[in-house]
Amino acid sequence: MARVSQQHLDARRRQILDGAARCFARNGFHATSMQDVLREADLSAGAVYRYFSGKEELIGAIVTEVLDTVRQAFEEAALQSPPDPPDVLVGEVMGRVLRGEYVRGPAADVEVPRLLIQVWTETLRNETLAALLRTGYDTVRVAWVKVVEAYQAAGLMRDDIPAEHVARTMIAAVQGFAAQQALFGEAPVEILQDGLRGLMSMGTPKPG
Amino acid sequence: MARVSQQHLDARRRQILDGAARCFARNGFHATSMQDVLREADLSAGAVYRYFSGKEELIGAIVTEVLDTVRQAFEEAALQSPPDPPDVLVGEVMGRVLRGEYVRGPAADVEVPRLLIQVWTETLRNETLAALLRTGYDTVRVAWVKVVEAYQAAGLMRDDIPAEHVARTMIAAVQGFAAQQALFGEAPVEILQDGLRGLMSMGTPKPG
Repeated sequence: MARVSQQHLDARRRQILDGAARCFARNGFHATSMQDVLREADLSAGAVYRYFSGKEELIGAIVTEVLDTVRQAFEEAALQSPPDPPDVLVGEVMGRVLRGEYVRGPAADVEVPRLLIQVWTETLRNETLAALLRTGYDTVRVAWVKVVEAYQAAGLMRDDIPAEHVARTMIAAVQGFAAQQALFGEAPVEILQDGLRGLMSMGTPKPG
Repeated sequence: MARVSQQHLDARRRQILDGAARCFARNGFHATSMQDVLREADLSAGAVYRYFSGKEELIGAIVTEVLDTVRQAFEEAALQSPPDPPDVLVGEVMGRVLRGEYVRGPAADVEVPRLLIQVWTETLRNETLAALLRTGYDTVRVAWVKVVEAYQAAGLMRDDIPAEHVARTMIAAVQGFAAQQALFGEAPVEILQDGLRGLMSMGTPKPG
């Protein structure tokens, strides 16, 4: 076997993952065959099987990559101190998720959300991936609870509500908006940002 | 063939759909076999195939039922005039979705959200079901836009934001929270209601 650089190996692995991600985004994990992936990545079976033993391993690699990207996007958006307001924060997250490594090219804004909801479904039937999802979510929740606590400490939000409930709700808004993008087609994140600004403008309901 | 009442036919059909919904919620559409459904519904193949030609028809029936229930839940919650505030509204919707016909019994709070995200994924690869989803979503969006317009007309929300953006955001919060219930386990809707109240308490950001 010819000596090949690490860079070449990495690029080839990336090429396979990109092709697989595009197939999975379009047709789902179950309706995609290894033949589809080979065609999409424009590689021979020999080239692909040197990197991945089969479809299950490919699915695992893609799901892991998607979940890592999403976790990082949520975590990094929450690093700012003092934290950005909710509408800015969700814009940051969606931007980072859509610019992720795992699907590139002009169709990313359509394919990433489609891939995401398929990743969710896949974790329902795979305990290893489910554990990965839960760990990522726990990390995100901790980071976003800190953000909400900072809002409350600064007097920007009523502080008689558990910060975790607000954090989960903000995360839910992002998840639901991604689902809408997957199900109803590309939509600018400004819609979600506007919507949050609208809700925030409703003012302080009396505690209790 | 013995003469059987319509009531009996309906009950039998319901028994099959309930069994299938439970199987699909647990294992997904693709990993569930007709054998699994027969076992879960405690019926013979003959009894089931009298009602459904096969798994695809069962999937279609379940997806249709789930989408109809969700659409109705969103629509009915929006009928109140003047409309309930967002936190009350989302509580209404989630309650109606979880009390839907399509999964009953003690596990409904876990199984309904699991079924829901699988329905989403299924629409990605089935144009008929996707069209059904889009029609339902369009109806819901129209109803919720009216709700937001009522908030704005009553001076409860800034009116320089497109009502549709706020409507989509409220719907996204519900969808995302359902996804969390599916992925991370049962969670009371009060979490989402609290979270919205927290966001609403942030006050009016300056327009622009």
